[in-house]
Amino acid sequence: MKNIFLLSFLFWYAVVTAQIDRIEPPNWWIGFKESNLQLLVKGENISLYTPQLDYQGVRITKVHKAKSPNYLFIDLAISAETQPGSFSIVFDTKGKKKIKHEYELKSRVKPAESYVGFNSSDVIYLITPDRFANGDPTNDIVKGLKESGLDRQNDYARHGGDIKGITDHIPYIKDMGFTAVWPCPLLTNDMPKTSYHGYAITDLYEIDPRFGTLEDYIKLSSKMSEQGIKLIMDQVANHCGSEHWWMKDLPFEDWINSQSRFEAGEKPVFSNHKRTTNQDMYAAKIDAKEMTEGWFVDTMPDLNQDNPFMATYLIQNSIWWIETAQLGGIRQDTYPYPDKVFMSNWAGAIMKEYPNFSIVGEEWSYNPLLVGYWQDGAQNKDGYDSNLSSTMDFPMQKTMVEALKEEENWNKGFVKIYEGLANDFHYPSPKDIMIFPDNHDMDRIHTQLNEDPVLTKMAMAYLLVLPRIPQLYYGTEILMENTAKPGDHGLIRTDFPGGWEGDQVNAFTEEGLGKEQKQMQHYLKTLLQFRKGSKAIHEGKTIHFSPQNDVYVLFRVLNEEVVVLILNKNAEPVELDLNRFKEMTLEDRKLTSLFTGKSIIWKDSITLSEKGAMILTTNK
Amino acid sequence: MKNIFLLSFLFWYAVVTAQIDRIEPPNWWIGFKESNLQLLVKGENISLYTPQLDYQGVRITKVHKAKSPNYLFIDLAISAETQPGSFSIVFDTKGKKKIKHEYELKSRVKPAESYVGFNSSDVIYLITPDRFANGDPTNDIVKGLKESGLDRQNDYARHGGDIKGITDHIPYIKDMGFTAVWPCPLLTNDMPKTSYHGYAITDLYEIDPRFGTLEDYIKLSSKMSEQGIKLIMDQVANHCGSEHWWMKDLPFEDWINSQSRFEAGEKPVFSNHKRTTNQDMYAAKIDAKEMTEGWFVDTMPDLNQDNPFMATYLIQNSIWWIETAQLGGIRQDTYPYPDKVFMSNWAGAIMKEYPNFSIVGEEWSYNPLLVGYWQDGAQNKDGYDSNLSSTMDFPMQKTMVEALKEEENWNKGFVKIYEGLANDFHYPSPKDIMIFPDNHDMDRIHTQLNEDPVLTKMAMAYLLVLPRIPQLYYGTEILMENTAKPGDHGLIRTDFPGGWEGDQVNAFTEEGLGKEQKQMQHYLKTLLQFRKGSKAIHEGKTIHFSPQNDVYVLFRVLNEEVVVLILNKNAEPVELDLNRFKEMTLEDRKLTSLFTGKSIIWKDSITLSEKGAMILTTNK
Repeated sequence: MKNIFLLSFLFWYAVVTAQIDRIEPPNWWIGFKESNLQLLVKGENISLYTPQLDYQGVRITKVHKAKSPNYLFIDLAISAETQPGSFSIVFDTKGKKKIKHEYELKSRVKPAESYVGFNSSDVIYLITPDRFANGDPTNDIVKGLKESGLDRQNDYARHGGDIKGITDHIPYIKDMGFTAVWPCPLLTNDMPKTSYHGYAITDLYEIDPRFGTLEDYIKLSSKMSEQGIKLIMDQVANHCGSEHWWMKDLPFEDWINSQSRFEAGEKPVFSNHKRTTNQDMYAAKIDAKEMTEGWFVDTMPDLNQDNPFMATYLIQNSIWWIETAQLGGIRQDTYPYPDKVFMSNWAGAIMKEYPNFSIVGEEWSYNPLLVGYWQDGAQNKDGYDSNLSSTMDFPMQKTMVEALKEEENWNKGFVKIYEGLANDFHYPSPKDIMIFPDNHDMDRIHTQLNEDPVLTKMAMAYLLVLPRIPQLYYGTEILMENTAKPGDHGLIRTDFPGGWEGDQVNAFTEEGLGKEQKQMQHYLKTLLQFRKGSKAIHEGKTIHFSPQNDVYVLFRVLNEEVVVLILNKNAEPVELDLNRFKEMTLEDRKLTSLFTGKSIIWKDSITLSEKGAMILTTNK
Repeated sequence: MKNIFLLSFLFWYAVVTAQIDRIEPPNWWIGFKESNLQLLVKGENISLYTPQLDYQGVRITKVHKAKSPNYLFIDLAISAETQPGSFSIVFDTKGKKKIKHEYELKSRVKPAESYVGFNSSDVIYLITPDRFANGDPTNDIVKGLKESGLDRQNDYARHGGDIKGITDHIPYIKDMGFTAVWPCPLLTNDMPKTSYHGYAITDLYEIDPRFGTLEDYIKLSSKMSEQGIKLIMDQVANHCGSEHWWMKDLPFEDWINSQSRFEAGEKPVFSNHKRTTNQDMYAAKIDAKEMTEGWFVDTMPDLNQDNPFMATYLIQNSIWWIETAQLGGIRQDTYPYPDKVFMSNWAGAIMKEYPNFSIVGEEWSYNPLLVGYWQDGAQNKDGYDSNLSSTMDFPMQKTMVEALKEEENWNKGFVKIYEGLANDFHYPSPKDIMIFPDNHDMDRIHTQLNEDPVLTKMAMAYLLVLPRIPQLYYGTEILMENTAKPGDHGLIRTDFPGGWEGDQVNAFTEEGLGKEQKQMQHYLKTLLQFRKGSKAIHEGKTIHFSPQNDVYVLFRVLNEEVVVLILNKNAEPVELDLNRFKEMTLEDRKLTSLFTGKSIIWKDSITLSEKGAMILTTNK
């Protein structure tokens, strides 16, 4: 009797203490093609309750309990006729207390087709937000977060850059000629250290307070949109940070990989990083499993996308951000690491809702076969279709650096980019592949090219005329380098000068920049502004000629518009015989040099007076 | 009046001196799917004659004159009902003289389906005939040929090896375990020097008299066939030797490329060797043209396969040799150099007649995309279908050498073959691709592997268990090397010891071989004989495990047969934990080491006592 009384008391206690900590997604929209929505409800003992709602067009089709009593997953069906509005979800139990939660179904702001993702008309500016500009010093230190200090002398500490820092400098970004911005992840990384990089997310629905608020993020997007600049969100489906809120109370026993080890306080199984297991017909099952289920590092628990609730959670999360922040694209981290069938479903779900959207997946491989495998439309023997519009051209990045640095020879130098670009015959859509001189994980291009500004300019000219989507890392325009410590991530992600009050050098205003830095900034601006208006580069045919006499020539052509790129390694003046390019039918046409403004009439030959890149255009 | 008399006289003179120098193909067969045959007739002023014939089922459908008066091309249609036999082709003119030529249509010896080409059940022995064995010293020096001397001290001179030398040693080849032989070209190379290699053919219907006769060649094939060994013919469609008989009197003005330059005594346009122009969507037309139409070297005129008479000539020539010598496959030289549409038609014409035949094309590229592009069944974006059953795995050859030589590391050593083999996901049919440690144009594998016999053995073990068609170069079995002069073709093609009377060393009998050479010969023999009977290697599934602790393990499995290859770089004994291979379900099975004969029961672990390759099999 005593026991029953005690149990009743405990039950009553549970009831009275029950509350909703979070429902995710926190809101949703009407008008999606996918009519089902699954809500994750987190609250102490919430599994003891039965949810109900009363709203025309919306019904609960199923309620799932998890292993933890503190979760419920509610399946909703939202009919096509449903009107926007709010309704209460009432959580009821045999006990006395009911819990109500208001849930909103919003109207969609604009048609699905108008979410146009980044494409070959764009050039993307990649930013490490903590290191670009500190627009709001009041959020530099946020109490309650595990890493709240600021130390600009420490490359691996927080430096204070934030969303407002980017927003404030949209005019600079636009003026340079960039048309899209990809900031590294801005979601909360409440980790005890090295949280600045953003890839250890601890709340998938929250902007890190040190970067700003959700409103700041939405404002960034809308201000960019006003200026014709697309916002690309960096998302991570593979893992979360070890301080993610759910890590203390995991809903299912298979919410993350290596969960039983984790719960026993043991080290997880780490990924073997054998990424070819995704394609390899001969891969042992154990290797394939270790690849996708192993953890990246021990501060990044590996999410188990085989759990259907996790899969749905991640897909809805991505769509929530697209719709909330009117995104212009997603960059998905560590693409080959999660389950590849899930990744195809994830990308497919997004592309179903946003047919003109773009997603780029990161596969860091120098093998063109893998670059091709992941792109939507690949004729893969295993039948895999990724639904992924864009992949990353690591092979060409490496090839370009080698080609520029090497002495010319029958199998060295320009011949490498000539033969490397020929690999485009294999790619489903070369112009939708992302190309870059470097990124936040690589040595700065200026360091890769031995700090030779001529080579760095040649790299820029080459990348920006290719049939690709170019991405440049912030600071490339002022020759930022990390030569002192190659491979050092902290140093690679150096503060952009002028982003902090009191900075001696200000790259936004050119104040204090060196001569070579200024030249590079102007050079890039000229190139980017030109590229913005060049339909031949965005959509045109590509024709290139095999390198001869240390000169490589590539043409982009659309109707009457012609862009000629001439890369020249000769230190002394040389004549370029134009008769070889007869098939381009440029005879007697006027072309203007992009950089010098001088015009020529296309006849027998032109003089290349110095080592570097020349761009000739019919557009001026 | 005088002029008319003169003309009449000349005409009369022409008539009386006319004769048939050659009709090619010299005979043909009934029963082909292709019912048309085109005869090239060469004879002084033969174009002044009209050919006629009277044979049931055969009719002349068209007679073509060429630019030179000394050629006629006669199109024949051969109906399906035609019986074998001979008939006269009568060449008539208004003059007094008729010329008769007997032409034979033979019965085919065996059904088309029984021409089974080399495949993954075979291992091919590649021979440079001049350097393997001198079976008939009487043909060493043949008068009337431009290079008739013999000089075994000179690596680039003739050494006297011949067809009989190969025929005499079929027992050795069989005993070693090879099941196919690819001799480098045996057709006449009547060139003033360096004619030993065979790739400058001066008569496409004649065996070089220094190698023997047509009868010798047919005898070689039939003797090999009796022993279950396939004969592969090395053919060259791209070029001929500059002393080819037709070079003094070319039938058309476009019989060869650069013909007008050649006729003016000028240097030809040379190939730019930009082989990617075959695939490159962006290649300039001028580069693509220079690639296929340029000459290889100035002693090798580039045949113009765009001339339809040339195209037909080459196709018929290949079929004539298959049918005459009962071939077991063709190796086609310099595959990307001729016009690729022609090459597809050529291979297609052969495969139409011989559905189970094999052809391997030589594309010397380290790019797997190109290896895949050329193989029959590739899903090429440009729609190209090569009809070519086999390509050459240069990428894996290079990768294997690096993998074996390098110190193990996360991105070096075995990981390269592990990731390289993963590229098989891209190939239309990996098991039909040819793999090789070296060939007649490359440094000997023992030289490539720093003359380390352990590494050379590992290379053999690896190649011979792969899902591929392995090819080994003669002499590999006795560790032949060219370390003194890397890259030197003459030295690479060293005489096989014992092939010449009076040789101090005889590798056929082991007499005088060093200890390491004998070991290698026995090792290879064991491997080859085992492979011959291993259906798991011929047809089985492949499963491999990512390298760990300097050990790489690959399995081949067919039903109950399992072959395990263990490559180990540890100098000191190590334990290999077998629990990792649980998915192979080998628990408690008995496996026997191929090389030691010792058996184990598959349990928890095995000891790898020394660096090298271990092969375990359930077959013994």
